[in-house]
Amino acid sequence: MTHQLLRVQNFNVSSDGIGAGEEQSLANPFGLPGAERLFGWAGATASWPNRTDPGGSRGLDDYFTRDFTHNIGAEIMGRNKFGPQRGPWEDHAWRGWWGDEPPFHTPVFVLTHHPRPSFTLSDTTFHFVDGSPAAVLEQAREAARGKDVRLGGGVSTIRQFLDAGLVDTLHVAVSPVTFSSGLRLWESPEELTDRFHLETVPSPSGVTHHLFWRR
Amino acid sequence: MTHQLLRVQNFNVSSDGIGAGEEQSLANPFGLPGAERLFGWAGATASWPNRTDPGGSRGLDDYFTRDFTHNIGAEIMGRNKFGPQRGPWEDHAWRGWWGDEPPFHTPVFVLTHHPRPSFTLSDTTFHFVDGSPAAVLEQAREAARGKDVRLGGGVSTIRQFLDAGLVDTLHVAVSPVTFSSGLRLWESPEELTDRFHLETVPSPSGVTHHLFWRR
Repeated sequence: MTHQLLRVQNFNVSSDGIGAGEEQSLANPFGLPGAERLFGWAGATASWPNRTDPGGSRGLDDYFTRDFTHNIGAEIMGRNKFGPQRGPWEDHAWRGWWGDEPPFHTPVFVLTHHPRPSFTLSDTTFHFVDGSPAAVLEQAREAARGKDVRLGGGVSTIRQFLDAGLVDTLHVAVSPVTFSSGLRLWESPEELTDRFHLETVPSPSGVTHHLFWRR
Repeated sequence: MTHQLLRVQNFNVSSDGIGAGEEQSLANPFGLPGAERLFGWAGATASWPNRTDPGGSRGLDDYFTRDFTHNIGAEIMGRNKFGPQRGPWEDHAWRGWWGDEPPFHTPVFVLTHHPRPSFTLSDTTFHFVDGSPAAVLEQAREAARGKDVRLGGGVSTIRQFLDAGLVDTLHVAVSPVTFSSGLRLWESPEELTDRFHLETVPSPSGVTHHLFWRR
């Protein structure tokens, strides 16, 4: 029994459960029209990892952005979160969306069937790994040195780890917007309540925080 | 302009604003009948600092207990939180309520007009200081080495720092219980809204989290 949790945090979906579009691109990383309506609540908080000015709210939403890095020692993400390319790498010039100072500050394990060499930007090192969810989680836990592991998304990566029974907690922010088509985390959050406790917490910002933890 | 905040966290009051009784004692540290109704919500969470078993909830309330130590480098507390004695120390045998492993893990500055030598228990060092709130905060900020400072209470210590305009954020959990008499943090939380933003967040546990941050 490990005490290193696998945690989904600050994952954003529409009220109809959609977290990304089918067609992601360099110009439209989420592949959705107006995707900023999904994560605007986070950008308004004082603890948003990408904030460069001293402002921002310190209410409920700030507890969630503040918790993003707390006791996290590694992240696992799908290749579709890492970049818009699909299939074999044409070259290794693409180093993620996040510039020279990625907001992770830990090892990051990118799931892909097309390995490439690890590289480091500031205090984030990206590793490219192929394997079952359980095997990749084992690698990430070792790299996290006793801390928890964040499951960063996207939708299909989270579904894959949920199906394997490996997720301990999820924080999903549901926005009052609908997209109708796209990659769907769920039809309804109730789908997970056979395996997880669920608390729903409406925020003044308009999102409803959904907090799940294992039964 | 410092970025080291002074934060009140997990402070508990009744729905009529009372955080402690007038008469505190070794047998009744809070000086209130049934004071555990004020802080029971925290004890039910997975991240409660005094938890010794692996259980506990990971819903909304857990975000607040989890945040208790996050980016905190020092605590300031009133003497009445440190112990039930008043006036000059008869001896130095009393070393706080918390046993050999206090939950602070940082320097703690105890406000008192009756100095005594500093001492260390595990990774918590208690210092006994006399001075204005601003002067004590300055000492605590230096000890916190760039991190925030927690204002631990009790009621009159928080009031004193509020009156001096030194508090940046407050998290106060209001329980659905009334005590009628005792030490009162406020008549109503609205008293602070001229100086602070306020969000109120009801929790499934029955407490209502009150989140204040400076305007």
